[in-house]
Formats: sequence, structure tokens, C-alpha cells
Amino acid sequence: MRAFASDNYAGAHPDVLAAVTEANADHAVSYGDDPWTARAHEVLRAHFGADAQPWLVFNGTAANVLALGACCRTWESVITPSTAHLDVDEASAPERMAGVKLVTVPTQDGKLRPAHLDPLLTRVGDEHATQPRMISIANATELGTLYELDELRALADAAHAHDLLVHVDGARLANAAVALGVGLGDITTAIGADAVSCGLTKNGALGVEAVVFLNGLEPAGFPWLRKQHAQLASKMRFLSAQVVAMLEGDLWERCAGQANAMARELAGAVASVPGVRVTQEVRANAVFAILPRAATTTLQERFPFYVWNENTGEVRWMCSWDTTSQDVEAFAAALAEVMAAQPAA
Amino acid sequence: MRAFASDNYAGAHPDVLAAVTEANADHAVSYGDDPWTARAHEVLRAHFGADAQPWLVFNGTAANVLALGACCRTWESVITPSTAHLDVDEASAPERMAGVKLVTVPTQDGKLRPAHLDPLLTRVGDEHATQPRMISIANATELGTLYELDELRALADAAHAHDLLVHVDGARLANAAVALGVGLGDITTAIGADAVSCGLTKNGALGVEAVVFLNGLEPAGFPWLRKQHAQLASKMRFLSAQVVAMLEGDLWERCAGQANAMARELAGAVASVPGVRVTQEVRANAVFAILPRAATTTLQERFPFYVWNENTGEVRWMCSWDTTSQDVEAFAAALAEVMAAQPAA
Amino acid sequence: MRAFASDNYAGAHPDVLAAVTEANADHAVSYGDDPWTARAHEVLRAHFGADAQPWLVFNGTAANVLALGACCRTWESVITPSTAHLDVDEASAPERMAGVKLVTVPTQDGKLRPAHLDPLLTRVGDEHATQPRMISIANATELGTLYELDELRALADAAHAHDLLVHVDGARLANAAVALGVGLGDITTAIGADAVSCGLTKNGALGVEAVVFLNGLEPAGFPWLRKQHAQLASKMRFLSAQVVAMLEGDLWERCAGQANAMARELAGAVASVPGVRVTQEVRANAVFAILPRAATTTLQERFPFYVWNENTGEVRWMCSWDTTSQDVEAFAAALAEVMAAQPAA
Amino acid sequence: MRAFASDNYAGAHPDVLAAVTEANADHAVSYGDDPWTARAHEVLRAHFGADAQPWLVFNGTAANVLALGACCRTWESVITPSTAHLDVDEASAPERMAGVKLVTVPTQDGKLRPAHLDPLLTRVGDEHATQPRMISIANATELGTLYELDELRALADAAHAHDLLVHVDGARLANAAVALGVGLGDITTAIGADAVSCGLTKNGALGVEAVVFLNGLEPAGFPWLRKQHAQLASKMRFLSAQVVAMLEGDLWERCAGQANAMARELAGAVASVPGVRVTQEVRANAVFAILPRAATTTLQERFPFYVWNENTGEVRWMCSWDTTSQDVEAFAAALAEVMAAQPAA
Repeated sequence: MRAFASDNYAGAHPDVLAAVTEANADHAVSYGDDPWTARAHEVLRAHFGADAQPWLVFNGTAANVLALGACCRTWESVITPSTAHLDVDEASAPERMAGVKLVTVPTQDGKLRPAHLDPLLTRVGDEHATQPRMISIANATELGTLYELDELRALADAAHAHDLLVHVDGARLANAAVALGVGLGDITTAIGADAVSCGLTKNGALGVEAVVFLNGLEPAGFPWLRKQHAQLASKMRFLSAQVVAMLEGDLWERCAGQANAMARELAGAVASVPGVRVTQEVRANAVFAILPRAATTTLQERFPFYVWNENTGEVRWMCSWDTTSQDVEAFAAALAEVMAAQPAA
Repeated sequence: MRAFASDNYAGAHPDVLAAVTEANADHAVSYGDDPWTARAHEVLRAHFGADAQPWLVFNGTAANVLALGACCRTWESVITPSTAHLDVDEASAPERMAGVKLVTVPTQDGKLRPAHLDPLLTRVGDEHATQPRMISIANATELGTLYELDELRALADAAHAHDLLVHVDGARLANAAVALGVGLGDITTAIGADAVSCGLTKNGALGVEAVVFLNGLEPAGFPWLRKQHAQLASKMRFLSAQVVAMLEGDLWERCAGQANAMARELAGAVASVPGVRVTQEVRANAVFAILPRAATTTLQERFPFYVWNENTGEVRWMCSWDTTSQDVEAFAAALAEVMAAQPAA
Repeated sequence: MRAFASDNYAGAHPDVLAAVTEANADHAVSYGDDPWTARAHEVLRAHFGADAQPWLVFNGTAANVLALGACCRTWESVITPSTAHLDVDEASAPERMAGVKLVTVPTQDGKLRPAHLDPLLTRVGDEHATQPRMISIANATELGTLYELDELRALADAAHAHDLLVHVDGARLANAAVALGVGLGDITTAIGADAVSCGLTKNGALGVEAVVFLNGLEPAGFPWLRKQHAQLASKMRFLSAQVVAMLEGDLWERCAGQANAMARELAGAVASVPGVRVTQEVRANAVFAILPRAATTTLQERFPFYVWNENTGEVRWMCSWDTTSQDVEAFAAALAEVMAAQPAA
Repeated sequence: MRAFASDNYAGAHPDVLAAVTEANADHAVSYGDDPWTARAHEVLRAHFGADAQPWLVFNGTAANVLALGACCRTWESVITPSTAHLDVDEASAPERMAGVKLVTVPTQDGKLRPAHLDPLLTRVGDEHATQPRMISIANATELGTLYELDELRALADAAHAHDLLVHVDGARLANAAVALGVGLGDITTAIGADAVSCGLTKNGALGVEAVVFLNGLEPAGFPWLRKQHAQLASKMRFLSAQVVAMLEGDLWERCAGQANAMARELAGAVASVPGVRVTQEVRANAVFAILPRAATTTLQERFPFYVWNENTGEVRWMCSWDTTSQDVEAFAAALAEVMAAQPAA
């Protein structure tokens, strides 16, 4: 199967598997007190700063929700765009796991802006109102758009001015960094973020993500929070080995670079197909588009992908680290063929 | 390192890694709608019955707590021995993740018995009292002891007579089954259990466990419960491939059989060492013993293992699927040497 | 002090206090197994139907949140207007106490409509998405507007067609019923609602509210849910006596009728004041208006009232069961005086 | 009805009702910003110290659970005797409302002692183990026994030496203080307690309890914690007026003194009845005894009281502020009569 459904339809990069295989020798202390985990933490600190506090967890839901739960008490809330994965695709995990309320802001492009904050902060200190404590932004966003460096700085500054912490949902952090031509720390630690969920699974790992607290933040009791939410791996070395494989060298860059390049190719190919409208700027590894529903249905029989919005018919085409130019060409050709067969509007 | 600290100090069996490597080809639907997961579910139903409902999760904490959380409402409680891993080693996960209260029963050997239930059930229907809804037993127990088949049947019957469900914490289910010379279903489905956490990680997997609801039980909303507690793997095929590798053939038996045999060897070797007293019957892969604290400290410098009870000085020596007779001999020799060097009491 | 800040600035009606005093004789079984509570339940069933299940709690937060929590599991959500008290004024109680996510719909007048539901129900059965299970509407609404009988029926029918339960936040249910000229059951049980939070405190009680499940609905374990959320009164008779006093005769009608009449008088008086714009239809006991901020500040020095929306300057003037025509006249005169003193725009 | 079932079978002292009636005049700011509440807080600070932080709530469940929840994070636990009301009579409220695990200690007399703490503190810092953060003791205890002043000091010192906070469940604090001949602050603030649930309802109020943080403790976000758990009264003045009535003068002493005296009388009368064995020292307002089950059943037809332990047949006889010597004489006579009619053992 070759799909444009999600970057988690892709498997793991061979180098990641090789690293896991190499870690599978002899006995090692469980729960993270092993050399692979020590090295994974070092690698993460190399990216995110010497005072970064990294913690490995099984998946992105956990990374995001534990980051929020560690920073917010139950009367505090997190401001996030209404398109946020946290709000729409986690089956109430923030509310249930962390007991944290989300305050959502409608946006066109999935990006929170400083001007969104003020109107939500009129009730600070009011015991009847949930108290905003954090903002959570995804970079790349859920709509495949990007925050530029200056946008990140301005937003983090605005948040901090209101005593709000800044969380970056980095499920596709590598895609954003590569698109901006900077490092992972440049769009997190350096812009003043307080916590990042550093995604690895979509970008080529088997399954591991890192919650990293930044710039000296050290939430109380995080080891227990991770444990009591079933996110402490017993054979941790197999998670850690993946982190090292992805982040020690440039594997993260090569994987994300390929996915981004394929999305650009796909967007280019699609642009010339009449009747298809790309709805968001293509910066990372996603292409969002609107096309006739009948065309969507026909095309889905040949290539799996998701309808993003059942109410508008918008679809999402994701490229991954293993998408090839041949995949893109085949898909674009199929799209063109399907669209050509559509009756005139 | 060669350790007797925990069966999770061991790595993964090579066949498990091979299966994961084999699954790493092409795209696959994420979140479990893939052929590997279909096969893993089939394999689990082959063990646990055609009407078993299997769900894969990342670790044993999740398997146990989600099993409880799916079956109990927040005013309901779970009766379990006071030695239960659930109560002493999960950092309040049952209370926090599932909102479930544990009602614990002191025991000498880690085994719950029918006679324990009656005194805890005097307040059924009383709105001031938590309402027992389930019992949770581990087989093999946390103390390395076993429930025999007739004990399991009697306990499950007693529980059901009181309208209590039966959960089996099977972190070491394979060790119990092999020790009893029966199949995994014989000590769960066949004795009337309602849910089992089928452990695989300690017995040779990289990291995966299965919650399996048995005998037709189908708790409402489990897919969402798993998702909202961050236990739905995106690249599920890599969990599923491990399950198939462990349970389709006899790998589970071979691994558990080796661990059990090594514990027997160790118990035998230890029996002849003066000053060491084995405290629990050795049936599965653990040996519990009391020896002088100074001896423990010295021995730990050569082989990692845990003090089980700081108040009594009892220690635990665990064997795993990759423990060898040479490991046991070396450890027993070290123990004998250390004990010989102890001053007379 | 005479205020237009909130109907809970008013005290209790003397008849309520007399009933409490009368109940204070001799010993009575605690926790609700007493004659006063039996009578209160009868009185509630007389209003809400013979198969209604009434439960008394301390306040409106509890009534609303327990109603939701009893009907929704943690993966289920409640659709409600974005102005809902539940969402904006309960400090995350639904998310924290009940573990329930709120899905909010922006509205102009605080009223949910059948057309709002469809777009929120495209992901039923999707394990990544919270599952809508209930709608919660307030009548009178948080903006002082009303749902008419036919609107209620259409909305309840639409909800039920989607397998959604219907909850009515009746903090001001009496005000709505009186304004519509119908009984309390006519706008709840008769239109097919499944649960109502029947408000009494704002309408003249000392402090008591009732959660009533309607039309045969009987959520599992409600006695324990109430108890474990600290809403079971030990000396229940003193809550029950209030319910009887308010609802056995026509006290609820007289109190709500007075509050509504005063709001109409106030709206009439305000209409002739230049520079003040009433923003919502005045149907119950609230008047919402926009006036210059400087005027608001000056007027607040003489009569306490709240700014409803710090971003628009909209204010809320509430009348209560004990508001008099003199109060209204004095307030209107003060408003006119303050507005006259405003500089021309 | 005259009962020995519970001190909450009694009504309210007339002075409390008079105070509520007096508070029912004019408008008052809701949610506690009113003169009655200011005075109630002053009165509480007069008892518990100038730096005490008092908060009023509806009932004892809320007072206890919010005190714990404010001081403990979800990975922290509370050490308490296994007889604690918190553990056995709150339907899992601590686990559900506060997400706090209880670690219980078996005792004969309901009293926690310094020696109980050490064995529970061997795993401080271990991420797999819940972390004890607080002890919770009731004075008078659930078994009607008392902690003496020197016992309180020793226990608080031991707790603090282990970095544990000290909570006093004061459902019957007045009974304890009166029995010891000291003030409410002497057995809380002065012995170094960090929080007290100051009970008022059982001792003559209609329904109000105070959570008071002591000795400068100021848990983060308590106003929101109270609000989001539905414990913020809108017409707060009616709760506050009760506090003032009970605690400003000596009403609390007189009420508790009467209840205690009646229990002493009852214990004295019972002592001479053959076949009845008093099981606990009678210091406050409870008498615990064992008598034949048939006698219990017969006696319960004439006077309501509870069987405390279904497994042993132990019963509890509670006296309240309004119990009279005639009540005691009538009960003792009935008991003697019933016992005389029992067949010889």
C-alpha cells in the first residue's frame, strides 16, 4: 500500500530498527536507568539546551497531555487554536487525563496570534472562571502551516507577559524546523518556549516521543505523573535507542526534508489540476485541498487519504519520510484522471 | 550485565525483533486497522476464546488499570491482596487513571481466597460505602506463588456469587501456565475470569501487553478509554507483530519455561547455603529469601537485585527468559561465598 | 443594600425560613430517610411526573455537573451554547468533577438550535473524537432569553433523533415557566427532557437545588455519585423543607413572577434613556444593556451590578423575587441621571 | 423520635436558626463577600490563629476531601487509620474528588501513632510508589476515643520530621476540645497541625463546615478548588451566620459538653447491665459496645442506632447536643429490659 493518509502509515526508518536491534543485548536496568537512556537525554539536551528536562513516553497523546498536566492545576486552562489536535483528536484526553480545560480560538490557518490572548484574560483572579495558564501551539500546525521565527517570538513574549507558559506540540517539529532551515531548539528553547512535545514516531521512529521542559522549567512530580499515567516503559532502552538514532545525527532532518519536499512536489502537481483548490499554504508535509466529493470517493479507492472536514469536503494529503517522487507522480496522475472524469459543475 | 533484579532487565527475544523487522515494510493503516493487528487479535482469541475481546496497550500499568477502569465506575472498588503490584507499585495509577478505589487484604503468600470476600461485602447498597465490583489477582503472584486451577475456580465462583467480576493480572501469566502445565486460557477464560492483562514484555517482547475481556464481557466505550489514556499506538503493527511472535507458536512457553526452570535451579542451589531462608514456595520465576543485610549489600555489588521489603530485609531474585544455568551457578557461588564470609550471628 | 447584581444577592423568602424552623424539631433520620424529604420528592414528582427521580443537592454547580456526570462517560461530551454558565462560570467543574468535555456553539441569544447539532455529529463512532451524548440548555438562558415550547420540542426531538440526551439547566426554570405561562413540567418533562437542574436558591430558597431525572431515565449509581462529590446533606430535612415550601404551593410562581415583572418594568424604564441599548429580549428577570463605560462605573457606585462582557462593555441587571417597583424606579432614575451627565459622544 | 444513631439525627440549636433568620434581611453580596462571612472568618481566626485561612463549605465530606486535595498532588497519599471516616464512609470521595490515595493503618482504638509512620516511608523518592504527603487523624476519633495533647504534639512532630503535613478531621472537634478542657486551637494550631476540618453540623448547626489552613499554610488555588467542586455557596451569609452563632460565644462548648456528658451517663448506666461490653474508652459523645445480636435487633425497634461492625456485632450509640438525661435513662432501661430477656448464653 502507498498512502497519503497520514505520516503514521509509514513504517520505521531502517536505521531506527538497527539501533533497537543493537540495544537488544544483555541485561539493562529497567525504567530508564540504562546507558541508552542516558545518551538519549544527552542528545535531547544537545538540541534543546543544557537545562532542558527530557522525558520519554510512548506516544504523542501522552507527550502533549502530560506536558499540560504537569504545568496546569485543575482550575487552570490551556489556550489553543480550535483546530488543535489536542481538542479535536484526543477523545477528551486533556480533560480526562490531566483534568485541564481547553479554551479554543477559531482561526483560518491553525495559528494562534498575540491578539487572541487579551480577550481571554479578562477574568484572571475570578474564582468562577477557569484560569488560563498556558498556550499550546503546534508547529507545524495541524493544517500544515508554519509559525515563522518572529511569529513564535512575538507569541511567546505575549504569553509570558500574561504569565502564561508556552507549550509547543511538536508532533511534526522536525518538519517545521527543516522548512524554516533552523534547528529544533531554535523554534522552541530559543524563542522562549517552556515545554515541547518532540515528535519522532511520524518522522521515522517505531514509537516514541519526548516531553521536554525547557529554559529551566521543572514541574513538580513529573516522574510520578508519567508513571501513574502508564507512560513509564519498563524496557526503556528500546525507546531511548530510537531517540538516539533519530536525533544524534541528521536522520531527523533527512526524514523531514524528504516528507516536506514531497508535499511541495504534490502541491505543484495538484496546482495544474482544474477543480482542485489547495486551501492552506504548503510549508511542511501536508497538502489540504477541496475537490468534489465524488472525486474524493473515487480517488480514495486507489489511494487511502482522509476527508478532513465532513462539512466542507476538505481533504488532507500527507507525505511521510518514505514518500517518493514516484508516489507523488502516481497520485497526481490518478487525481488528474479522476478530476477529468468529473461532470462539469 | 547479568542480573537477578527483574525479568524486565532482559531484552527481547530475537524472534520478536525479527517479527518487528518483518512488519516494517510499506505503508499500513495506523491505529490498528492493519493485517498484523488482525492476526494478533486472532492469536489472542485462539488462546482466550472465540468471544474474547483483545486490546493492545503499551505496558502493564495500562493493561491493569484500563481493565479495572473499563469495568468499574468511580463508586466501585476492586478487592486485591495487599501485596498487589496495582496497590504498591503503580504510583496511584488505579486511583488516578481509573478513579477506582482498591480494597486490600493482607495475606502471607500473595493469594486472595474466597473467605476474604465475605467480610468486605457487608455494605452492598450503602451509599456511604464504596461498592466492591471486581477482584484482581495476579497469577503468578507478586510473591512468585501460584494459584492452582481448583483455587482459581473456587475463587472465581465465590466472586461471581457476590456479583463481582474477576480480573487476572497476568504480568507473568505464561510463567503460571507453564508451571501448571496448562494453556493461557485454562487459567483465565476456563476458570471464568472476566478480564486478563496478558503480559508479554517481561517474557521476551520489546514492549506490548494485551487487555483481554473474556467470556463475552464487553465494557462500554473501551476504544475511547484506551485512546483518552494515551494507550492507542499509531504504528500499531509494531506492537501486534510482537504479540504474534510471542503467542502464535510456542515462544511464550519456551521463554517462561526457561525462566521458571532457572528459578527452580536457583532455589535448589540456595537451599544448601547456610543462613539464607527462602520465604515463599518457588513455583514461577522468582525466589524470595531473607539473608543478613550485610550479605545483601555485598552481593548486590556483584549482581543487581532488589530488596523487596526494607522492613524485614527480604530480597527478590528474578529469573528471566534469557537466564542461563551458568548465570545461576555464578550467582549461587557468589552467594555462598558472601554468606561464608559473614560473621557468626 | 439594594442591588441589581444577581438574584442570589436576595435573601430567602420568609415562608422558606418558616418551613426550615418548623422542620427543626426532634430527631430525624439523617441523609434523607426522613418525612420532609419524602414529601419534597413527592412535590417534585407532582411537578415533573410520577416517574421522575429527584435528588437534592446543595447548589446549582452540583446540580448541573452531577446531572451531566451521571449521564455521560468520560469519553462523551455535552453540546451547549458558548454562553452557558457551565462553560464560563463554573471554574472547570464539568471537566474536573464529571470528567466531561463541553462542546460549545457560538450563539447571539444564548439559544441552541437543531441546526447546530448536525455539524457536531460527523464523527460518531470515531475513537479519536469525543462522542456527544447530551445537550445542555438553560431556560431561561444565561442571557435572559427564553426557549418557547415549540422550540424546546423541536430541539429535544432533534437531540433524541441523534441519540443525545437533553439536560435543562433550570437555575431560573421558574422564571421561564412563569414567563411562558406554563408549569415546570411543561418545559421539561413534557417536551421530552431527560434531566433538569431545578433551581430554587435564586428564586427564594436559602440554598438547595434538585437534580431530577425525567421520563424514566435512571442513571446508574447516582446515590454514590452524589455522596462521593460531597453533595449528600446529613441533616437533609433542612434542604427538603425548603423544597416543599417553594414548590408545594405557588410560592415559586409568585417569586418568579415578581422578578420577571420587575425586569419588564426596568426594561420599560430604560427604553426611554438615551444612550442605553438593551441587547437581548427581556423575557425573564434579566436586562442586558450596553452603555458607556464611564456611566457604568458611576452607576455601580450607587447600585451593585456586573459588567457581563469586559470586551464589549455589556452589563447585566438582574431582578429578584424581592425586587420592588421602588427599587426599579430608584435605579432607573439614577441611570437617567448618570446618562444625562455623560459628555456627548 | 429519640435516637442514639448519630449526632446528625439531631436538629439545629435554636440560636443557630435565630442567627440565620437575622441574616435574612436585605441584599448581600453573594459568594462570600458579605459582612456575615467576614465575621465568620474573624471568629475562626480567633480560634485557630491570626494567620489561619478559613473557607466555608457545605458538609464534612467536602471539608475533609478538599483539605486533602488542596495539599496533595495526585501522586501523593494520605496516611490514616483504617477506621477513618475518610476511608470507610465517603464512597471513595478522596480518590474521586481529590485523586488522592489513602494509605491505611490498622489500629485497635482508631488512633494513629508515630511508630506507624516509619514503615510506610521506606520508598520516598521512588517513582513507582505513591508518596506520603500528609497524615489525617480524627479527634475525637471515629471510635469515640481521644488524642491527648501530648499525643497530638508527638504525632505532629513525627509527621513534620518526615515532611508530612498534618490534617485533623474535626467532625467532632468540639467534643474533643471540651473533653480535654481546652480550646479548639489548642488541639490543632497549637500542636502544629496544618489543616483542620472544623465540624459544626453535628454539634448543632443546620449545615456548614469550615476547612481551615493553619500556621501559615496557604495551598495554591483553593478558591478555585472549592468552586470547581461545587462547594461555594451563593447565599454564603446563611452558612456564615451559623458559624458565628456556634463559635463566637460558647455555644460550641455547651453543645459538645452536653453530648459528652450524656455519653458518660450512658456508659455508666450500661456498665451495670450484664452481657453488654463497652469496647472503647468513652471520652467524647460515643459509646461502642458488643451485645448479643438478638438483643440489638429488639432494641433497635425502640431506639434507632447503628451496628458498627456487621462482622463482630459491635454497635455504636451516639449522643448529641440535644440528648437529655431522660433520653439516656429511657434507653438504658430499655437495654436492661432487653438484655434481661435474653436466653442465657
